[in-house]
Amino acid sequence: MASVYEQMTNEELDEQIAQLEAEAEKLRARGLKLDMARGKPSPEQVDLSRPMLDVLTSSTDLVDEGVDAGNYGCPDGLPAARRLMADLLGVDADNLILGGSSSLNIMHDVIVHGWIHGVRGCEPHAVQAARGPLKFLCPSPGYDRHFAVSASVGYTNVPIRMTPEGPDMDEVVRLVENDPTVKGIWCVPKYSNPTGITYSDEVVRRFAALRPAAPDFRIFWDNAYAIHDLNEEPDYLLDIFGAVSAEDHDNLVYEFASTSKVTFPGSGIACVVASPADIADLRKTFNVERVCSDKLMQLAHVRWFGDADGVRAHMVEHARILAPRFELVDEKLESGLGDLECATWSHPRGGYFVSFDGPKGSAKKIVALAEELGVKMTPAGATWPYGKDPDDTNIRIAPSYPSLEDLGAALDVFVTCVRLVSARLAREAR
Amino acid sequence: MASVYEQMTNEELDEQIAQLEAEAEKLRARGLKLDMARGKPSPEQVDLSRPMLDVLTSSTDLVDEGVDAGNYGCPDGLPAARRLMADLLGVDADNLILGGSSSLNIMHDVIVHGWIHGVRGCEPHAVQAARGPLKFLCPSPGYDRHFAVSASVGYTNVPIRMTPEGPDMDEVVRLVENDPTVKGIWCVPKYSNPTGITYSDEVVRRFAALRPAAPDFRIFWDNAYAIHDLNEEPDYLLDIFGAVSAEDHDNLVYEFASTSKVTFPGSGIACVVASPADIADLRKTFNVERVCSDKLMQLAHVRWFGDADGVRAHMVEHARILAPRFELVDEKLESGLGDLECATWSHPRGGYFVSFDGPKGSAKKIVALAEELGVKMTPAGATWPYGKDPDDTNIRIAPSYPSLEDLGAALDVFVTCVRLVSARLAREAR
Repeated sequence: MASVYEQMTNEELDEQIAQLEAEAEKLRARGLKLDMARGKPSPEQVDLSRPMLDVLTSSTDLVDEGVDAGNYGCPDGLPAARRLMADLLGVDADNLILGGSSSLNIMHDVIVHGWIHGVRGCEPHAVQAARGPLKFLCPSPGYDRHFAVSASVGYTNVPIRMTPEGPDMDEVVRLVENDPTVKGIWCVPKYSNPTGITYSDEVVRRFAALRPAAPDFRIFWDNAYAIHDLNEEPDYLLDIFGAVSAEDHDNLVYEFASTSKVTFPGSGIACVVASPADIADLRKTFNVERVCSDKLMQLAHVRWFGDADGVRAHMVEHARILAPRFELVDEKLESGLGDLECATWSHPRGGYFVSFDGPKGSAKKIVALAEELGVKMTPAGATWPYGKDPDDTNIRIAPSYPSLEDLGAALDVFVTCVRLVSARLAREAR
Repeated sequence: MASVYEQMTNEELDEQIAQLEAEAEKLRARGLKLDMARGKPSPEQVDLSRPMLDVLTSSTDLVDEGVDAGNYGCPDGLPAARRLMADLLGVDADNLILGGSSSLNIMHDVIVHGWIHGVRGCEPHAVQAARGPLKFLCPSPGYDRHFAVSASVGYTNVPIRMTPEGPDMDEVVRLVENDPTVKGIWCVPKYSNPTGITYSDEVVRRFAALRPAAPDFRIFWDNAYAIHDLNEEPDYLLDIFGAVSAEDHDNLVYEFASTSKVTFPGSGIACVVASPADIADLRKTFNVERVCSDKLMQLAHVRWFGDADGVRAHMVEHARILAPRFELVDEKLESGLGDLECATWSHPRGGYFVSFDGPKGSAKKIVALAEELGVKMTPAGATWPYGKDPDDTNIRIAPSYPSLEDLGAALDVFVTCVRLVSARLAREAR
């Protein structure tokens, strides 16, 4: 469909551009300094977890189920904390290892495990890579930090088209089942970063039914937003381990999660889940690279939340703060761009992002202009491997951190940038 | 010198063995369950840090020098916490990065950096290793977990003889300056694990003067016991970075430390220090593999200790608890073995270990017998690469964890085991 700008006469369009440029100049004069770049909880959200800091005191019993959280030991993590995370993910605690405070860091460690040690006795990926490049599949748009990890370790990132149901599974099946150099795929299956969609049951089932050409292929299932619903009609994600075992096979999935967007970002607890054989394989490597993880933070989470229901109740408080921000994004985009037919955006029911698509060739220009006008966005293209968005349309909007007032101001700037860039592109195309 | 057992007649020796076997049977009957295996602070020591748990509460200002410790960001660590660690180590805070709670884990990450990415633009070690094995030098006896990290990543561990002054530097210089496949050396320069010695100024200066054949050779300077003195006449370790810069070169040393034996083992803060160019090289890799580390624990340390003097005062409290344990080890060994000329042991002024040497071929037998009698020791040979102590003499004694009473009982068992095994070996040799 042609945009309103494309349908204007040259004169109308020139007048429109002049008006928008004047608007932009006014915004520039305000000297704003706003940030919609990263999926970072707002201070208001972080404050929800402050009472957790009162849980451990000098007189607290630090021994939990026989494990002294204040001393070395228990490298898999406190049993009660493992159960808490397992309950939230609907998995077996025996198959879950807690490690540090960052799930990204665990993903990195798991990738390094395959690269240096090899997955389950297979030849290390580093050795295989000496014979020719190995591939990592990257549903795009996706999470820039995921792509950075696999690329930096040495895999070739291969973009896979995202659909409203999840990754293009025909393409995934074709590559994974026929190409033994494909060793992994990045997935954010619920409230995907940045599109906000949740993989359909059909997509999850097709993942579970994969018969990889490489025995050391694994799905990296980053369930970062498993419990991060925005309202009372959340998306439902089919349990991947259940689906895999229904297919009567195993050793296909590493699942990851953390409490970084539940309690304190960067200071929470993080975990990996896998089949019994895969988790034993990882444990062997982990036990060489660390004595144990911080169990005090694990203990604080367990004692404060009590159980998974305690965490879920806490997430409702997060949603109360986050939902109005997502509503404001939708309102501002709808009122500013709804009639223009030059852009689309997602309407997620959870997670941290709205995925925005402008006209072809617009994203870099919009982000650059917004930056000039004092609004920082995630760099255009960041959501694609190597930063290369083939159509240069996608922009990730992260509305969580700014106050509602700042967010409104930032969105006004953004809308003006989208309109001006779209109008200019329409003019240039003549 | 021949031991007392070796000087006995056959009859005397048989009688001695019979007596010792009877003693051993009595000990076995007591059904002891004691542990002198790991360098783990005692509960009494850990309790010293309990007041730190009162420092962060729900009403604490979590912003420190403009950084919000409760949210993402500041991947190098809180500036105040970096300065605290830098002051303790006598280094420049700009050259120090905090990461997680485990220095062993940082060492692993730094080794993986060289293996996968290459040190400062050099070819990755993984690629070099495809042409032939790369070596890591392991002063022995040394720390088993160090050796496990380098071996597991793929280096060939090469033992280097330890002397009372530090590693055999003639051998280190010969290997490092002539063999470009030598990529690293493990050092615990102060109160070395397990011998307890501190490297002499001469040894530190010879390290600093190294002109490695490989541009990507680094010294892994694990200053684990930098401030872990047992009495008021501590050892003094020459500053390695100062010594390197006096030699007018650079980029030779990675230094590591943590607060695991200062506050909460496994839950403290850990760091790496390097030259400006080397730290920039590491930072690039770290910033891909983690968003940031746990800054709440960093903040708790800073707020509780105030400054380096606060930490040093705290370490005096640790010494009050630890020193009697080390004295008991010396008393028990001296009174039980002092006249027998069958064993030697170290008399460290700090750190966590006493290094014990029995007759050739005795260590495995002593540790096995002690285990039978209910006392767990570090496995014999663990202090050598691949667990191979060439003379089978060395045993690491870790006296920190048990209570004084338990430690006394464990040492009585140990002494009996040493006597019995030494007597049997003397008999077998006839």
